[in-house]
Amino acid sequence: MGCVQSFRELCDRPKKTNVHVSLPIVCFVWQTAMIILFGIFIRYNEESDTHWIEHRKAKNISSDIENDFYFRYPSFQDVHVMIFVGFGFLMTFLKKYSFGAVGFNFLIAAFGLQWALLMQGWFHSLDYTDGKIKIGVENLINADFCVAGCLIAYGAVLGKVSPVQLMVMTLFGITLFAVEEYIILNLIHARDAGGSMVIHTFGGYYGLSISWMLYRPNLDQSNRLHGSAYHSDVFAMIGTLFLWMFWPSFNSAVTDHGDGQHRAFINTYLALASTVLTTVAISSLFQKHGKLDMVHIQNSTLAGGVAVGTAAEFMLMPYGSLIVGFCCGILSTLGYIYLTPLMEKYLKIQDTCGIHNLHAMPGVIGGIVGAITAAAATESVYGAEGLANTFDFEGAYKDTKPTRQGGLQAAGLCVAICFGIGGGIIVGCILRLPIWGDPSDDHCFDDQAYWELPQEEEEEESNPTVLQYNNHHTHNKDIAVSNFTMEQN
Amino acid sequence: MGCVQSFRELCDRPKKTNVHVSLPIVCFVWQTAMIILFGIFIRYNEESDTHWIEHRKAKNISSDIENDFYFRYPSFQDVHVMIFVGFGFLMTFLKKYSFGAVGFNFLIAAFGLQWALLMQGWFHSLDYTDGKIKIGVENLINADFCVAGCLIAYGAVLGKVSPVQLMVMTLFGITLFAVEEYIILNLIHARDAGGSMVIHTFGGYYGLSISWMLYRPNLDQSNRLHGSAYHSDVFAMIGTLFLWMFWPSFNSAVTDHGDGQHRAFINTYLALASTVLTTVAISSLFQKHGKLDMVHIQNSTLAGGVAVGTAAEFMLMPYGSLIVGFCCGILSTLGYIYLTPLMEKYLKIQDTCGIHNLHAMPGVIGGIVGAITAAAATESVYGAEGLANTFDFEGAYKDTKPTRQGGLQAAGLCVAICFGIGGGIIVGCILRLPIWGDPSDDHCFDDQAYWELPQEEEEEESNPTVLQYNNHHTHNKDIAVSNFTMEQN
Amino acid sequence: MGCVQSFRELCDRPKKTNVHVSLPIVCFVWQTAMIILFGIFIRYNEESDTHWIEHRKAKNISSDIENDFYFRYPSFQDVHVMIFVGFGFLMTFLKKYSFGAVGFNFLIAAFGLQWALLMQGWFHSLDYTDGKIKIGVENLINADFCVAGCLIAYGAVLGKVSPVQLMVMTLFGITLFAVEEYIILNLIHARDAGGSMVIHTFGGYYGLSISWMLYRPNLDQSNRLHGSAYHSDVFAMIGTLFLWMFWPSFNSAVTDHGDGQHRAFINTYLALASTVLTTVAISSLFQKHGKLDMVHIQNSTLAGGVAVGTAAEFMLMPYGSLIVGFCCGILSTLGYIYLTPLMEKYLKIQDTCGIHNLHAMPGVIGGIVGAITAAAATESVYGAEGLANTFDFEGAYKDTKPTRQGGLQAAGLCVAICFGIGGGIIVGCILRLPIWGDPSDDHCFDDQAYWELPQEEEEEESNPTVLQYNNHHTHNKDIAVSNFTMEQN
Repeated sequence: MGCVQSFRELCDRPKKTNVHVSLPIVCFVWQTAMIILFGIFIRYNEESDTHWIEHRKAKNISSDIENDFYFRYPSFQDVHVMIFVGFGFLMTFLKKYSFGAVGFNFLIAAFGLQWALLMQGWFHSLDYTDGKIKIGVENLINADFCVAGCLIAYGAVLGKVSPVQLMVMTLFGITLFAVEEYIILNLIHARDAGGSMVIHTFGGYYGLSISWMLYRPNLDQSNRLHGSAYHSDVFAMIGTLFLWMFWPSFNSAVTDHGDGQHRAFINTYLALASTVLTTVAISSLFQKHGKLDMVHIQNSTLAGGVAVGTAAEFMLMPYGSLIVGFCCGILSTLGYIYLTPLMEKYLKIQDTCGIHNLHAMPGVIGGIVGAITAAAATESVYGAEGLANTFDFEGAYKDTKPTRQGGLQAAGLCVAICFGIGGGIIVGCILRLPIWGDPSDDHCFDDQAYWELPQEEEEEESNPTVLQYNNHHTHNKDIAVSNFTMEQN
Repeated sequence: MGCVQSFRELCDRPKKTNVHVSLPIVCFVWQTAMIILFGIFIRYNEESDTHWIEHRKAKNISSDIENDFYFRYPSFQDVHVMIFVGFGFLMTFLKKYSFGAVGFNFLIAAFGLQWALLMQGWFHSLDYTDGKIKIGVENLINADFCVAGCLIAYGAVLGKVSPVQLMVMTLFGITLFAVEEYIILNLIHARDAGGSMVIHTFGGYYGLSISWMLYRPNLDQSNRLHGSAYHSDVFAMIGTLFLWMFWPSFNSAVTDHGDGQHRAFINTYLALASTVLTTVAISSLFQKHGKLDMVHIQNSTLAGGVAVGTAAEFMLMPYGSLIVGFCCGILSTLGYIYLTPLMEKYLKIQDTCGIHNLHAMPGVIGGIVGAITAAAATESVYGAEGLANTFDFEGAYKDTKPTRQGGLQAAGLCVAICFGIGGGIIVGCILRLPIWGDPSDDHCFDDQAYWELPQEEEEEESNPTVLQYNNHHTHNKDIAVSNFTMEQN
Repeated sequence: MGCVQSFRELCDRPKKTNVHVSLPIVCFVWQTAMIILFGIFIRYNEESDTHWIEHRKAKNISSDIENDFYFRYPSFQDVHVMIFVGFGFLMTFLKKYSFGAVGFNFLIAAFGLQWALLMQGWFHSLDYTDGKIKIGVENLINADFCVAGCLIAYGAVLGKVSPVQLMVMTLFGITLFAVEEYIILNLIHARDAGGSMVIHTFGGYYGLSISWMLYRPNLDQSNRLHGSAYHSDVFAMIGTLFLWMFWPSFNSAVTDHGDGQHRAFINTYLALASTVLTTVAISSLFQKHGKLDMVHIQNSTLAGGVAVGTAAEFMLMPYGSLIVGFCCGILSTLGYIYLTPLMEKYLKIQDTCGIHNLHAMPGVIGGIVGAITAAAATESVYGAEGLANTFDFEGAYKDTKPTRQGGLQAAGLCVAICFGIGGGIIVGCILRLPIWGDPSDDHCFDDQAYWELPQEEEEEESNPTVLQYNNHHTHNKDIAVSNFTMEQN
């Protein structure tokens, strides 16, 4: 801890938010690298290539409708909406950071999905005959999933970092994700349809560790902006609802054709419905006069979708899904009420969006639920073929027993936590270097640092006292006049 | 009427909006009940169960793509968006009730869909061999439909009831809906693809009757908040557009595979397009200087989708759809201009969102259109097989004539109206009991009653005169200072 | 130019924004005409007709899932969202023109799609045996496409025209579009899956030419409203993101079943991702302190989707898509920074939304990319069957060589530009007639001209100085009182 402390002091130089050179360079260089790497490695797979018609005949596929595109495209589009509108708008709740929330989310997701196609491709879709990665709709869904991990991490540091830092965080996040995912899904052979472990646990702890490394003792200087406004809360509900509605697609997007997708969707739908009720109950119970808190409604209502991720494709049973949602609504809301303040005070982790309550903790619960459900699987419930299909007991894993699978699931969960925390600490160290243009404490949560704001907003920003007090007549008049003059130009 | 009046007086005690105990209890107990009932009754059906692969082979189904999931999931997701974003945001138009609109909509929909799965399941999907309800994607769509009926009713009482009242209203609403639906679709054997009768007519009159029972003579005390603001009107357009765009999915979601879904979607798309033009025409014609009224654009543009619901799967013909939309745009807009004020003045029905013009009246029109279209069906237009498929003339109904089907449709419409009005009056009586924590007249349409509002908003709320006049310097300064002090904590 | 000038003077009479008579008449008469024409011409096709079951047996189609509805409906819904929410909200960025942006977009799209079904139907889907147009899901997608062309043109004149002018502009726009499309796709036999040429180039130049004809020398009188506000920029991001996310569906909606849709979606997804990074880079590079400009993020990030439209279904290769996106992000953002001001100053083209940078220029690039990619196609890359399928080398075009196809593509691009400019000039002349109720220069970009605004907004509008200065106590008090009085009524 001593060395961490001294490293911190080393980094605590006066901050300048100028990203005039660094941001364009990062964007140009990395995008150029993507083009080169895509040129070398990435090609269409047999379902998106013009040779599909020959492939179809060779494989005796009766109709174009059996192209994987038609199985997965509706789910893909829902996932895509979650990534860009869901995550983006969920974070617009801060009164003066809506541009940053939705804009930087857009930027890092657009970069992340390209890098994810490469990283995941090398691990999963590399065709050894010609050294190319062959992509189709499933790869693109997985790239969106991979990006989700980084966007979760963004939630922890929202308003406190520069876009360059976010790009760096995404570059390393995607890389770590791909390795962790390969270990969990391929080496350990755990199942994780909706990514409770792979996406949410990893992403959550990755973000929390980075936030811990970037701890700002004097963040209360930004308190003026560290809250929501009426309209920004309504904008955030757009994000919440699109995440909530499309979560069934998220958890079923890459599960098995047929019953796999069907069941994953039902389980997620039910878990989410259940979460809403317990979130409302706890929110009302723990507030003065029973009033509801928008923070809980915006976030905790989603915890059930996270927690049912791993087990969504299993025979969790409808009531099982409801129980998972029930518990997560309670735990997540209590987390916002008690845990987040404690974490800031004692653990020095400042978690802007409360991702610990929405992703990390429900992700761990999801991993545990998955392990238990897998261990409890029986042939009488699943059927022989169903058991083999659901848990992919094929090839080398032909003789795996469900109880052993439960252990593998638990091992996968541990890997996700370790990668999240370990990776986050390392990347956090890198991000502390005083070269990234992050804002000083009193410019946190303020779009003005990185965005050209509309005239009147800028005015308001730079003269907050005038507008708050609203009683210095002459001064106020001058401003109005100067404002008018500026608009004339 | 005398006894109603005295009952009203009995109930008119001073109101307290505290739901500190009641809301958590209702949420917890009802959600627990759901878990128990789901545990006893609800299982996956053969298309979402791991035994699907065996089922597939037994039924000689050639590909996973013929799982009902792939026929209906895209439509399901659209319907889901309508329920949560569509209805939720449509009601955000009030300047200070956006949290309540979108938040309570979320709460009651999440509860309602669980209860609907059970209620509808008992009537429609109960497997008598093992006493279980087997659910798949179609059940989940129907649950969303069922919820829609209650959300329509919410529109009539928006801003005037507590969340506990809404939960009670939903519990009874879903129950009544399931019974009514069973009578109309199964006993009477009427067809109602898009639910003009089953959903909109029932939901509309259910809400209006409740609103009549909850009549508030002094509601003008809330006039200050009983209107829209510029941004809240834009938020409401999000709801309008998602409802408008996805209505074709709503009306086609549970129709027959193949041409049934295809035709229902085309008819709805056309009816809605036509409605927009006549809504704009009437809105402009009846306003000073021809200016358009956002209330009409937000609501009446949707009336065509309601009115084409029943007949959407019939051979209504493209021009028929346009005619239905044409008429509904006119009638619905005129309803907003003339009928709503009259209903409040003479019938004592306060209809916040004007659901009579958007759902009840177009629903009745839809029922009538359905009856006429069914009665006019001929084998020359439909083809023999087509006629039997479309009207489900199978089994006991093999020899039904189209003219008789027209009569059945009309009978169904009457049942929907009776259930709506009768059920609404009874439930309205229950909701008048002074135990539900509903707001006093001067706290209606105000989020402050049930929500923690962002600091500055609360300030604004509690000192409206100060901000309106904006000229008591010392007072204003004190507030700004106290505001600052509060933010420091 | 002299005659243009004198015509301009003739038209420059004082303007009145009253559309009290003209708007209702236009809506009623045109909608009635639609009903009559639909009655005469439009019927269901064999996939949406009740005879589908017979058709299915006759054609030996094994399952209902092979109805075109299931191939295209998810894409259709995404396109529908782009048209109504995407285009509508993208234009809400002006601080006081959100109602007009989203409302008039709604109106003209609803009319346009009906007229497009007829116009495109006569050219493409007329059944010569009975003189009827047979419609199915693909026709409805194409109608939405056709509407997109007119909505693009709306972007150039946003805030400067009356709804009646927009209706006229749409009527002629759809007509021109259908002819132009028929020439390009059928007579010239160019391919244009995503409509880079047919939709974006045409729509862009059509709008720019109209805007040139409607040049307002004194538009700076509206400068007060010619900008965005913080919240209106966030609303615009809703439009941006839905366009961005669903653009892959746009470009793949009417491509070939199977690999065609699959590949078009992948190419578009990648091009768009690449565009985001270069847009951010240029935006940051060319602003003071490297701050990002919301105008660029809202618009230029979409240019890649436009530019990849024509080539989306070709074997552009993933890296090819990235390169197209890379270039378009740069060019489009530079266009906003340098070209738009120059075009206003020297060419007298006032382009409110900058459609030249978002649609016209990227559309031309898309046409060129398409021509090059087509000319470079080889059998070794596409396979013999794949080449014939992709470029539709069938029937009379059986022996077309790819190089020749490249020439045809280029010819198509020229036709699109000519139709856009020529049509725009003619329609612009018509729209200059002083009978359409367009706003005077100082009422541009102001919703008050055509919309009933919420009370407080209207107050604000009519007394801007009072609210800006905020220090005339007595006056201010009077207004507050009168406001209160008005609300009492």
